[in-house]
This record gives sequence, structure tokens and C-alpha cells, in this order.
Amino acid sequence: MQILRSGSQCTPFQGGTLVPTMGALHAGHSSLIRRAAARGAPVIATVFVNPTQFGPGEDFDRYPRTFDADVALAEAAGADAMFAPAPEEIYPRGLETARHEAARITLPEVARTPALEDACRPGHFAGVCQVVARLFELTRPRAACFGEKDFQQLRLIEELAAHPEIALGCPGGIEIVRCPTVREHDGLAMSSRNRYLTEGQREQALGLYRALQSCMAAQRIATAELLMRGTLEEHGLEIEYATIRRAADLLPAADFHEPTRALIAARLGPVRLIDNMACPIWR
Amino acid sequence: MQILRSGSQCTPFQGGTLVPTMGALHAGHSSLIRRAAARGAPVIATVFVNPTQFGPGEDFDRYPRTFDADVALAEAAGADAMFAPAPEEIYPRGLETARHEAARITLPEVARTPALEDACRPGHFAGVCQVVARLFELTRPRAACFGEKDFQQLRLIEELAAHPEIALGCPGGIEIVRCPTVREHDGLAMSSRNRYLTEGQREQALGLYRALQSCMAAQRIATAELLMRGTLEEHGLEIEYATIRRAADLLPAADFHEPTRALIAARLGPVRLIDNMACPIWR
Repeated sequence: MQILRSGSQCTPFQGGTLVPTMGALHAGHSSLIRRAAARGAPVIATVFVNPTQFGPGEDFDRYPRTFDADVALAEAAGADAMFAPAPEEIYPRGLETARHEAARITLPEVARTPALEDACRPGHFAGVCQVVARLFELTRPRAACFGEKDFQQLRLIEELAAHPEIALGCPGGIEIVRCPTVREHDGLAMSSRNRYLTEGQREQALGLYRALQSCMAAQRIATAELLMRGTLEEHGLEIEYATIRRAADLLPAADFHEPTRALIAARLGPVRLIDNMACPIWR
Repeated sequence: MQILRSGSQCTPFQGGTLVPTMGALHAGHSSLIRRAAARGAPVIATVFVNPTQFGPGEDFDRYPRTFDADVALAEAAGADAMFAPAPEEIYPRGLETARHEAARITLPEVARTPALEDACRPGHFAGVCQVVARLFELTRPRAACFGEKDFQQLRLIEELAAHPEIALGCPGGIEIVRCPTVREHDGLAMSSRNRYLTEGQREQALGLYRALQSCMAAQRIATAELLMRGTLEEHGLEIEYATIRRAADLLPAADFHEPTRALIAARLGPVRLIDNMACPIWR
């Protein structure tokens, strides 16, 4: 597997399948890379901890950096190249300029729905758009794999990739491949942030999965949301949101007649965890 | 909404979104049509009970025909046209010739996996390929909606649509839109065949959904399959298959590390029911 440091080194991999990551790779990332490899085209995994998507007081500085292990895991999962650029490669006009540019990005509606990620992490999605658009520009992929774990981000990237300017220089456009969430043996969704958890918090963190499970048989939205909140509170989790939204636009759902998604963000002290699950469609 | 009887009448709807059905429409079909309408392009629903996909002794003759109600439901869900061809329109060389032609079709591997639909209903998928290819030819859609309820059929149609000859005359190819299963208030998957069930059988039929639910927390394939079989037997269902397969190729799954699907076919006397569900990915 080749390690690429500059955009120009990515040229031979144009038309391949991109797997953008922030490193600290785990079995969820392996799954993304294996899915990418199954498409047949060359696979570029990227590792870049993007400063513009972290807010003040968030965990940018202590975000886990495990580069050597990442290289080994990506290679074992079937990546052909690992693009690990320096910040100057992504933001040649400097970080301060990049932050100003990010602040001027108009997000698609799906990223601005009330009381979801954007309300909890203002500016986060602008940074995500910025870095993903830049990675697309440098690597010109035919497809990119993203996990359902970050469901609103996935929907945002789908909208982004459909924008004609973003796919410029990518003949046929950029297909976004949805990859299902990978879970620990007890249901906890894989996340690089799980390593921040103490043993006791690890047990509490299970509340997110249990809350999602608890509402899968509910027939009414209000019941489903009540069940989720109850389960989260039982586990001592501080709820940021626990809500059922329409899967397409992430606006509040009136009923389970159309595809919906249960979405949770909760805190355990300084650690913020998110998870989500598709709900059944009930007549 | 226009009622179309011949292929030539479909010409104005080329490039639209197709929703092929066998009629006897229910809330699952409404959901397909609403999903199709959400794409923006004109929606053609089709109603055709295709004789070549029924085996001898199957329910072709008594398959429910409810055309007037179908028209009303399709219109309410947002269809722009209903294509309801006579058999001669689909098989101009006659039904006997069509059956001979179907028998010569080589199915993609995903339709021929051991001990799933093809083993229970030999010849069924050839008839499905035949009629769907013919509907594509007559209506030249840009996209077509299929439900996850018939998961192996959905995978088959995805392979079919990717075949260069099939999408001939459809610029940009034919996108297959996966639509989630719609369930009754207790979890029973919507099916036109549910109306065959007696009140007692209706209760037993719930065993399929409960069996799928029962295995969602299992960590090993063997455990999951045992739980499914146990639940189905408790409900007095005659099992045709109850198995965990890899979601991509429907071959037997060794573990839950990659996307898998739990798939069931079971009988209640003469009524055959199928259902399936995505399993979580466990590390």
C-alpha cells in the first residue's frame, strides 16, 4: 500500500473509491474499506483530522492519532493507498483563511434541520463539507464510502456529491456508498471516541443502542421518543437529542408510514456519543 | 391518471420512474409509488399478473385481481399513469413461446444461491427477469422502485438492470431504488397474499416477523438460525428456509462481521409467506 502526502501523488488513483477518515481506525473503518474494495476500483483511504470541523472546546487536540496502526489496518482491509496530507496540502491558503471560508458555506437543508447535529455543533458541518469537497477535488473519485453511523453527515455528503460543481472533473459523478454501522458485541456502535470511555462509562454508553432498540416496536412517534428518553435516562446519559426524523430530509416525522430514522446524541461527561437506526415502516 | 394498455401508449412517459406490480395493491405499493413520485420524474405504475413467474400448482388463477381499487390507490399515491397490459402486449409471440424462452434464461448467480427462492420455486425468477426486462423495454424508465420485502428478487433486478443489454434505450441506465418493507401494526410484512389468511393463520403469520426480531441480538450465525427456527416452529409454521446470508451475494454467511440479511420462507397450509431483515454488523 502506498502512502501519499500530496494531492499530485493521488493522480494515479483518480476514478477510484475514496474512504475519508480522521484516523484512529477501528472495525467500522475496516468495513468501509472492504466495501470499497468490493467495487473493484482502486481504494484510497484518507487520514486527516480536519481542524475546521471541530468547534472551540471540542476534542481536536486530544483526538486520537494512531497513524502506524491505521496504515496496517487500512492495508489489511484492502486499501491500495493511504492519503495522509499535511494541513497545508488541504488548506494551502492557511487555516485562518480556511476557517473564514468555512463560515461562508451555505449548508444544504438536510444539514440545518432544527435540534440535530447543527444545533449541537454549530460550524461542524461546514468544516465537513469543506474538507470532503477538497478531498474530492484532490482525489477525483468515482465513488466514496461513508458510514450510516453519522447519518446526518451521510445525508449531507449525498447532497454535496449531487452538486454539479463538486463532481467537476469526476466523469459520471461521485457515487456515495452507504455502509451500515458496525457494532461491538453488545451493540455499542464503533467510534474512535469510544476509547475515551472509562469502564463504567462503557456500560452507560450501551444506553444509546438500548434506547434505539427500545423504540423499534413503537407505533407512534411520541411513544418511540418517550421510550428512547427513558432508556437514556436510566443509563445516566445526558441527552442532547433523541428523536424520530424522516429518513429523507431529517425533519420531524408525524408517523411511521414512511421511512424514518431514530437519532440520538448523548453525553457522558466530556464524551459525546451519537447513534441511529432505521425504524420499521408501519401501516 | 392515465390508463395505458399498449407499449406505444407508454412512449410519453419514457425516462420516468417505473413501479412494477402484480396489482392487489396495498400500503406497501403506496409506499413504492410515493417514493417514486418523490424523484420528481413522471411515475408509471404497472399492473400485470405475469403467468411465466408462477409454477404449476401455484396461485396464478386465484391471485387477487382488484383493478379498480388499484387504480384508485395508485392515483392517490401519486402515479401519473397505470400501465395494465394484456398478456399479448407483453408476450406477442404467445404464452407457450414465452415459457420456452423463459426456460432458456441464465439467471445471475445471486438468484441461484442454494436453498433460497430458486430452490423452492424453480423457474420463478426466470419469469420475473422476463417480465421486468419486457416492462423496461416498453417503458424505458430512468429508475424503477422495488421493495426489500422480496429481497432476493430485488438483488436479482439490481443485477439485471446493470446488464448493458437491458438498459439499451435508457440513457444513463436504469437506477433501481430500494424501498423498505411496510408492516402491519403488529409487524406482519404487507403482502397481497395476506388476504388468503384465516384469522387464526393471521396470528400464526406473525411468527415470521417475530423470528426475524428474535435473532437480531445473536452474535453467531448458528444461534441466529436456531432462534429463528424455534420461533417459527412455536407458531406452527412449516419452514422452507430460515437462514442468514451475506447481503451482497446471498451466499451463506460465516459471521456477522459484514452486512448480512436474515431471510425466511414459511408455509401456512397452501399460503407461502416470505420476509427478511438486515442484521446488525457485529465486530
